[in-house]
Amino acid sequence: MKKNLIVGQSGGPSVAINATLAGVIAAAQQEERIGSIYGSRHGIEGVLYDRLIDLTDFRDLEKLKATPAMALGSCRCKLPDDLEAPIYQTIDAVLKQYNIGYFLYIGGNDSMDTVSKLSRFYQGKADAPIMMGLPKTIDNDLAGTDHTPGYGSAAKYLAVTMNELIRDTAIYAVKSVTIVEVMGRHAGWLTLAAALPKLLGGQKPDIIAIPEVPFSESDFINQVREKMKTTDNIVIAVSEGIRNEKGEYVGSSAKSGAIDNFGHAYLSGVGKHLELLVRNEIGCKVRSIELNLMQRCSSHLGSLTDVEESFSIGKFGVRAALAGETGRMVAVKRETNEPYSVSMHTVEIADVANLEQLVPNKWFDLEDKEIQQEICRYILPLIQGDIPRFQNDYGLNEYVIF
Amino acid sequence: MKKNLIVGQSGGPSVAINATLAGVIAAAQQEERIGSIYGSRHGIEGVLYDRLIDLTDFRDLEKLKATPAMALGSCRCKLPDDLEAPIYQTIDAVLKQYNIGYFLYIGGNDSMDTVSKLSRFYQGKADAPIMMGLPKTIDNDLAGTDHTPGYGSAAKYLAVTMNELIRDTAIYAVKSVTIVEVMGRHAGWLTLAAALPKLLGGQKPDIIAIPEVPFSESDFINQVREKMKTTDNIVIAVSEGIRNEKGEYVGSSAKSGAIDNFGHAYLSGVGKHLELLVRNEIGCKVRSIELNLMQRCSSHLGSLTDVEESFSIGKFGVRAALAGETGRMVAVKRETNEPYSVSMHTVEIADVANLEQLVPNKWFDLEDKEIQQEICRYILPLIQGDIPRFQNDYGLNEYVIF
Repeated sequence: MKKNLIVGQSGGPSVAINATLAGVIAAAQQEERIGSIYGSRHGIEGVLYDRLIDLTDFRDLEKLKATPAMALGSCRCKLPDDLEAPIYQTIDAVLKQYNIGYFLYIGGNDSMDTVSKLSRFYQGKADAPIMMGLPKTIDNDLAGTDHTPGYGSAAKYLAVTMNELIRDTAIYAVKSVTIVEVMGRHAGWLTLAAALPKLLGGQKPDIIAIPEVPFSESDFINQVREKMKTTDNIVIAVSEGIRNEKGEYVGSSAKSGAIDNFGHAYLSGVGKHLELLVRNEIGCKVRSIELNLMQRCSSHLGSLTDVEESFSIGKFGVRAALAGETGRMVAVKRETNEPYSVSMHTVEIADVANLEQLVPNKWFDLEDKEIQQEICRYILPLIQGDIPRFQNDYGLNEYVIF
Repeated sequence: MKKNLIVGQSGGPSVAINATLAGVIAAAQQEERIGSIYGSRHGIEGVLYDRLIDLTDFRDLEKLKATPAMALGSCRCKLPDDLEAPIYQTIDAVLKQYNIGYFLYIGGNDSMDTVSKLSRFYQGKADAPIMMGLPKTIDNDLAGTDHTPGYGSAAKYLAVTMNELIRDTAIYAVKSVTIVEVMGRHAGWLTLAAALPKLLGGQKPDIIAIPEVPFSESDFINQVREKMKTTDNIVIAVSEGIRNEKGEYVGSSAKSGAIDNFGHAYLSGVGKHLELLVRNEIGCKVRSIELNLMQRCSSHLGSLTDVEESFSIGKFGVRAALAGETGRMVAVKRETNEPYSVSMHTVEIADVANLEQLVPNKWFDLEDKEIQQEICRYILPLIQGDIPRFQNDYGLNEYVIF
């Protein structure tokens, strides 16, 4: 008997998350056992508020792959821990109403929490829909997978942009400090990508600060002073989530204190904080740059490797769901680096939800040539290739907008 | 008798200023009357401190055209108004020492001030070197020319990035305001480029604020409230240099008060100021984005039209100098829009130095369809085409570094 499929997107956007959506649609359209394909607007909220759109006959898959952010919209909605809560009955009723056999959810740690709870809710129930998680986060901090879709494109943005910023900051013959603030929550993966110009054998960025290494403001100022003896224009790549020796976010006193629905403090402003610190302590020309949303939505710098892999993950997720796997997330295993090749499998979602994969300790010494090469071997294959563009008559990109 | 040539770059960087340098080198290498070609490091400072590099045999012109920022370095050095000041004697001595017949200076308003003063210093003197200004500024605010080299590439960055940001900000089903702060000093040309997604017939950005139109904070808040009735996700493009009805910079009370060598107040922070204003007055989710240095150094988004035209301007400047024109700046006249074609000529530099070309009054009504089309006809030809990339084995761009 045919069953229908729902796919949703949740959490923060990336350049590749629509490619995974396209992969789900492409594979589902090929499957005889799947009837209608529904897209849930704004993640699980689309199920709760009956905002589903019919994607069964959607054909513009290549353009969807090249569209940034989330074509279906997103949410930051955390389901209650209590599986007896009425909201689960609401979801169940809607899934029954639409004869849903397959529920695929594309997202990061928090989104996997949603999939995990729903699969526990359905555990042991008759005729339960399949629950499948599809990974996505530019932060690359999901456990159980070699890397996450979206990271490669963001990493490419960071490497290319840092390379250009280094040129821009080098022009004046005066002492200056430029602090570039990079996303990544508690993980330094994105900042390592911004450090690629150095890791590939260059001099800059001069200082790299990732959240995995406790940050001392006084050591930092000493390091800036020391670097200034040999270079005029200091460039610093710093993760938004760096903490001091006590585990407190650097500059947290200056932060808004706002907390999102998952209890995460909004991280921003560390660049500005360090800018003021340098101005006060050293007094030279100093500027901070927040790469902001551009690092997660710059599809014009999308990595073809990333986008095509994200597409494959969507397709693999549908096939795994049809094979009866449930309560699992698709994961990527790197098989070889030269040539770059991966295989896909699924992992138990409870082993992934709410966990964070951090940069390993062995990579902390970024001055070590062998470490530099190891990190480059990890990141470089993920940023290769340009994605096709769909330009209008004016030379600007066209996107899929549902 | 052969004479030598000096070329320098000054002011803020752009994606296209090295293309003009390449054009100067290319034309000078073809000219029998020119002996050595010297590059002056850090603008006029290279002459003052004898930091000249020999570019006579430099061949990597295509890569130089694709290198962002200023390969020779820059300065923000204002020559004294008093032409009797000793510094002019120093410059004259160095130019004589190097047998300089041609002095070409690439820059914006302030750099043209330097050329203007030097040409007045040399006026009536025997055997004076030719003084030629070559225009450059992403701000597009130079008088006497249809547009300036560097503007097209920055405009392309702004249009492409705004297009992507609009997608990113559209994902959540909650009321939100995103304020994108754009460079441009006192002129709104760059912000009009960021407004292209709207001017081309789209809905967003919802609000566009340029410095030429006095800005009222209370009108702004009313406008946001009004827009919020019909859209969840408001996107605003705002020039760094907007002023209120009294002519004061918006948010200037929160600014550093620092002033550069030309007496310009450092403009930054209007986005953050408006973010706080919206948070206080409306209380919705709000974010400000400063596009910062990326809008002037993103050579990966360079406009081929801009870069090739900048190259031609460099070549034209050498030919005009050899024809004996002095105290002048190369300017661009737009001949036709379809197909786009320009011609070049020179203008009296005293008519250009320290003047600002602002967005004309007739363009202020950005809701008017005919105005929208007129602005698009002006900007769109300038952003067409991609520049070649010189990638290393890792897929990252290589640049010329002197």
